[in-house]
Amino acid sequence: MTDKPTLGVGMVGYAFMGRAHSIGWRTAPSVFDLPVRPEMRALVGRNSQATAAAAAALGWADTETDWRALLDRDDIDLIDICTPGDTHAEIAIAALAAGKHVLCEKPLANTVSEAEAMAAAAAEAERSGVRAMVGFNYRRVPAAALARELIAAGRLGTVRHVRAVYLQDWIVDPQFPLVWRLRKDAAGSGALGDIGAHIIDLAQFMLGEKISGVSGLTETFVKTRPLPEATPGAAGLSGSSRGTEVGEVTVDDATLFTARFAGGAVGSFEATRFATGRKNELRIEVNGSAGSLVFDMESMNELLFYDGTEPDQTAGFRKILVTEPTHPYLHAWWPPGHLLGWDHSFVHEVRDLVTAIADGGELRPSFADGLQVQRVLQAVLESAEKSSSWQQIPD
Amino acid sequence: MTDKPTLGVGMVGYAFMGRAHSIGWRTAPSVFDLPVRPEMRALVGRNSQATAAAAAALGWADTETDWRALLDRDDIDLIDICTPGDTHAEIAIAALAAGKHVLCEKPLANTVSEAEAMAAAAAEAERSGVRAMVGFNYRRVPAAALARELIAAGRLGTVRHVRAVYLQDWIVDPQFPLVWRLRKDAAGSGALGDIGAHIIDLAQFMLGEKISGVSGLTETFVKTRPLPEATPGAAGLSGSSRGTEVGEVTVDDATLFTARFAGGAVGSFEATRFATGRKNELRIEVNGSAGSLVFDMESMNELLFYDGTEPDQTAGFRKILVTEPTHPYLHAWWPPGHLLGWDHSFVHEVRDLVTAIADGGELRPSFADGLQVQRVLQAVLESAEKSSSWQQIPD
Amino acid sequence: MTDKPTLGVGMVGYAFMGRAHSIGWRTAPSVFDLPVRPEMRALVGRNSQATAAAAAALGWADTETDWRALLDRDDIDLIDICTPGDTHAEIAIAALAAGKHVLCEKPLANTVSEAEAMAAAAAEAERSGVRAMVGFNYRRVPAAALARELIAAGRLGTVRHVRAVYLQDWIVDPQFPLVWRLRKDAAGSGALGDIGAHIIDLAQFMLGEKISGVSGLTETFVKTRPLPEATPGAAGLSGSSRGTEVGEVTVDDATLFTARFAGGAVGSFEATRFATGRKNELRIEVNGSAGSLVFDMESMNELLFYDGTEPDQTAGFRKILVTEPTHPYLHAWWPPGHLLGWDHSFVHEVRDLVTAIADGGELRPSFADGLQVQRVLQAVLESAEKSSSWQQIPD
Amino acid sequence: MTDKPTLGVGMVGYAFMGRAHSIGWRTAPSVFDLPVRPEMRALVGRNSQATAAAAAALGWADTETDWRALLDRDDIDLIDICTPGDTHAEIAIAALAAGKHVLCEKPLANTVSEAEAMAAAAAEAERSGVRAMVGFNYRRVPAAALARELIAAGRLGTVRHVRAVYLQDWIVDPQFPLVWRLRKDAAGSGALGDIGAHIIDLAQFMLGEKISGVSGLTETFVKTRPLPEATPGAAGLSGSSRGTEVGEVTVDDATLFTARFAGGAVGSFEATRFATGRKNELRIEVNGSAGSLVFDMESMNELLFYDGTEPDQTAGFRKILVTEPTHPYLHAWWPPGHLLGWDHSFVHEVRDLVTAIADGGELRPSFADGLQVQRVLQAVLESAEKSSSWQQIPD
Repeated sequence: MTDKPTLGVGMVGYAFMGRAHSIGWRTAPSVFDLPVRPEMRALVGRNSQATAAAAAALGWADTETDWRALLDRDDIDLIDICTPGDTHAEIAIAALAAGKHVLCEKPLANTVSEAEAMAAAAAEAERSGVRAMVGFNYRRVPAAALARELIAAGRLGTVRHVRAVYLQDWIVDPQFPLVWRLRKDAAGSGALGDIGAHIIDLAQFMLGEKISGVSGLTETFVKTRPLPEATPGAAGLSGSSRGTEVGEVTVDDATLFTARFAGGAVGSFEATRFATGRKNELRIEVNGSAGSLVFDMESMNELLFYDGTEPDQTAGFRKILVTEPTHPYLHAWWPPGHLLGWDHSFVHEVRDLVTAIADGGELRPSFADGLQVQRVLQAVLESAEKSSSWQQIPD
Repeated sequence: MTDKPTLGVGMVGYAFMGRAHSIGWRTAPSVFDLPVRPEMRALVGRNSQATAAAAAALGWADTETDWRALLDRDDIDLIDICTPGDTHAEIAIAALAAGKHVLCEKPLANTVSEAEAMAAAAAEAERSGVRAMVGFNYRRVPAAALARELIAAGRLGTVRHVRAVYLQDWIVDPQFPLVWRLRKDAAGSGALGDIGAHIIDLAQFMLGEKISGVSGLTETFVKTRPLPEATPGAAGLSGSSRGTEVGEVTVDDATLFTARFAGGAVGSFEATRFATGRKNELRIEVNGSAGSLVFDMESMNELLFYDGTEPDQTAGFRKILVTEPTHPYLHAWWPPGHLLGWDHSFVHEVRDLVTAIADGGELRPSFADGLQVQRVLQAVLESAEKSSSWQQIPD
Repeated sequence: MTDKPTLGVGMVGYAFMGRAHSIGWRTAPSVFDLPVRPEMRALVGRNSQATAAAAAALGWADTETDWRALLDRDDIDLIDICTPGDTHAEIAIAALAAGKHVLCEKPLANTVSEAEAMAAAAAEAERSGVRAMVGFNYRRVPAAALARELIAAGRLGTVRHVRAVYLQDWIVDPQFPLVWRLRKDAAGSGALGDIGAHIIDLAQFMLGEKISGVSGLTETFVKTRPLPEATPGAAGLSGSSRGTEVGEVTVDDATLFTARFAGGAVGSFEATRFATGRKNELRIEVNGSAGSLVFDMESMNELLFYDGTEPDQTAGFRKILVTEPTHPYLHAWWPPGHLLGWDHSFVHEVRDLVTAIADGGELRPSFADGLQVQRVLQAVLESAEKSSSWQQIPD
Repeated sequence: MTDKPTLGVGMVGYAFMGRAHSIGWRTAPSVFDLPVRPEMRALVGRNSQATAAAAAALGWADTETDWRALLDRDDIDLIDICTPGDTHAEIAIAALAAGKHVLCEKPLANTVSEAEAMAAAAAEAERSGVRAMVGFNYRRVPAAALARELIAAGRLGTVRHVRAVYLQDWIVDPQFPLVWRLRKDAAGSGALGDIGAHIIDLAQFMLGEKISGVSGLTETFVKTRPLPEATPGAAGLSGSSRGTEVGEVTVDDATLFTARFAGGAVGSFEATRFATGRKNELRIEVNGSAGSLVFDMESMNELLFYDGTEPDQTAGFRKILVTEPTHPYLHAWWPPGHLLGWDHSFVHEVRDLVTAIADGGELRPSFADGLQVQRVLQAVLESAEKSSSWQQIPD
């Protein structure tokens, strides 16, 4: 019913992120007038039966049990990597080498050296028109994108302060099991890499500036936890199955750090899974010489904006309901006042990715961006190991 | 890839509501484990070219230019009516007579007599297992459904007060054109029937009680408006095209009414399109002898709950983030703290509708429910015409 | 230490309102540079011992057991009436006849005829320079005064909607005793006259317009209550002492009404003592063609303002923290961001009253204003008795 | 009119803090039933005329131009020190030696060594029943005191996180003059000592635990500013008068630090005068294993409390309106729902101080507490000078 060119997509992994990406792939073409039509061609999982069931539910036409199979399929133009961080480098580098575009979930990798190899592969692939993006989806929340627009337009003047937290509470219970996200070998780090990475990327995105140095501390409040029962395709966020054995938590439960930005602003960052009552609270406040902004994922359709040029009599933080056609991504959605949800950020991610692939335009966050975030993460951990002493971030 | 039975769906209309319903039909099967698999088989619109484009974008397999064509198609099991209110009765009654299940957008009809005929047809069809539902989608917002659960569980005690408003501002500008929603012949009434109907239904749903009487007033602030340019398939909410001719606004810009509920509570209701700055603010507060609740669509993932049995020292309105697996509809979605959007209510609507069709369970709001809302709307208009004098609602 | 002229004040009653007024009289001279220095000369109460204790605590120099004694004292220039409403008329009329300025707590009286006599007495006294004011203290909350300023300056354009509620919950418990505020003979009416009067006055003040007609309903949820033990000087808000006898509640627990304003706006009003969890929630929203405002006493240092002339991209309800020197009354207080409390409204009331007495300037709300509020109250009750039928307010 | 014993008070300084303390001294006896009656006997200022005017306005009976005069006056029992920090040590030590109780504004001193001398003097004086307190007034805000109560009662379980900010914006404008608060010689430090000291004290008070170590950074965004015109008794917060000369800002505009508490919690602290739009935003969030709390001075009558023992279905941050008679300090004030203001914290401070003096009970924050805060401040500055490296706080 349409003669748009198609883009064949294969996705690796179908747990939490895989489900969210599926919504993105399925919904984007019906909301946005995309230059190409993505087709959900193959889902990859190790367990063939479970993968088939997931594919049926999520709308993928076919399945594979080895991601390498995608490399040889001509009908696959793009590989979407939704697996744990320790597998990202291998899959992404192979995919790019095979000429497949890549969307890689964040964090880009578990180590800086992996991330360097991935960024190099992406730079190489780019020369032949093969594109790569890392999936920091919060950039695609309209209110966050509006924050970026206002700062870029100078509405905040010189930025002085960034205050960023990402607070969750899903492991407050010491009996919550030792899932892969709590193991350094699989996850690289804990709260820092999982959710801290998001606020690092988002703050830098909003400011259009990089973090130049950090001082940090990490804490693991609960040192040992029950091992989970073996479960195929375990989601990492589910705590339903617990074994009787106990294992050591090898990542941070919480990480705090202070930072300086290249443009002179100072910042405070915190990522934790022990903030009782905070379920998915990603909050960033930015203060500049001419104004301030507050973005909060628990009120993700709103952006607070203080215009310091207003007369005192009527100045105040205004709650912009980011649902106007003039707001980022919103022209394609509903009338003003109709809210979007968290998963719509993946719809926007697909839209931006597909559009850039089609028109060759800029595609951010790039693997180079992902590598830089990785360097910040590493510097924070180094500082924490060295009595919180200041660490410069290499360019 | 699945051997579930299918349910063939045909939808009439593809403007604002048609787009939202399409999201519902497309997304529900991937989120919920439905007993049958709905298939989006045919989209109906008068203009064949525009309809084909819409079908391609929204994911409908086929198109028709006359809704009657659906009646004869064996592959169509359900007809989803997304047209203006003056067409609902004819289509719905014919569809039910043809043995098709019906989902009909609200308000059920433009007049009580149409609604009575529809409710009779639905009752008749029900006897042969043909089901009908009216699309008051806000019942399917998880926080609203949680409100219902808490009240039904007695957490509020005896309900004393309902305070309900639905505030928009899209016609504050007197140059906004005279779209069909501002014409009595097409829309039946203005703010009252369009958005007032939602808060009537939602308040009665939450309380599990009917309104027994009302006293109302209506107001049309802007008496004449420019006629819109003729536009095929005009959405009714778009003000982009304006003609030079002027026409009379024949519906209410705003309606206010007080009410009494069967159980003794008193209520205050207001629907307006002139609340500058309020884009889609549907807000309901309920006070009972043991507690209170506040639901607000501009914060649709939250429910405020005051538990009057708490000691004074720690009592307070708590902001429940309605994203836990124990909350209505949420078991199938994301981890806690990940927000849903307005259009997810249509996903839930499809889930409830399809489930009830498959298992023969209760299906609400029924056409009888829609008729009762229509009677409240009529009583409000009558009161407004009779110096706001009290009008009992017939059972 | 100062040679300012003094103003001798005598106050009748020392319960809830008397305590609040005492704070006003005591604090105003230290915060504002007043043209005259009020002196707290005599406190009147029937029980001499209790009155002496109250005077010592509240800072009154002397006591009387009969308010008539104040009429003859040359050192008393002003009589501040803080007694229940059924005594206002007699005291105020006698005081004005004796050449004493009068501050009378709201509501002005329990009946329109009493209020008419009081307004006539005030008009007569005014000719000889004797001033009278009714104590609608909420006009003196800075955020409410700022609302008035913004509306008067045209920032809202043509006002379309007023939405006003005053919600309390102190008699939700059916065992709360039948205090004087629940008896028609002492209090005139219930929620309507006690707190509904405040929102009527405040809404009219903000708009600078009068209500022209109303349609109302009243409800008494709990029909009988335990009689309180006899307590001298009972405060009316205390439920600590309960007897075993039961009496009939003769006032409204809740009153709702719709209204029209002289300028074309429509309004919704509600006063209740059964809004569980709402302790002293006075909230007024005003929508105009060019903007909107929300004032809420539970956030009394804030005013929400939506400027409809802002571009969509950055428009939003801004939370003005009303603590800037440019805000009403604030030049005399603290640096920005330091909040005021409820009782500071009485400091401002004293400041405005004393200033107008000294310089002969306008003094509002006048007894004529109080009378007009009384007429609105009476019209609401009449409408409630006549099937909610519309009642015009006589000029 | 009362035969309570009196407590003669002399106050040094009458700028911002002196005005606030005067409200406290004047109002406390009328609100609380104090065991002694404080009398405002003498105000001290260098300029006799200005001091006399201030005394008349603020309600002090007499004046002195040298604070030493208070030492010899038998009618002075207590000296209240409201001068800049560089004068605290000399006055306080002399007062204690002269047997006068002391209330000293925070921070206790500008240096640790001064604070040590003061704490020693206070310990010495205590032996003869002479009492000393440092004026961290925020402990006396009812919601902060309630936070302390809930944590002490174990409602938060083991505390994991503290997140504390104190944000102001009064020197964002680079033309704001170099007032004494921006000079290290007079103020000791900038944002850190002025407002950072408050959140250090308040966080430690709430937790009942001390900070054990810190890592910090400081920043001065605007390095030079116009010198102010010479003004006697300049308030330090007023920017009205500017000279043409320029001087160097010798204190921090902003300070950020991370911290560990003795009980294992980690903390994030920030004090800044460059948070555009934040006027006096003191905000502390505490997360524990069983619950969480948020206190915010911009909503000072509220405390947010998340009870982690609630079932998921109804758990949420509840907004406790801290105006119930069961809440700290509130039994003496108004009915529920009537808000207090910032200056009422000084009324409570006077109440607690006077009560402890009368009954010999515990009096906190003591000078030892003030010294400990000073040690934290110094450790933060040291860390900032040493590449943010971790600094332990000596006991």
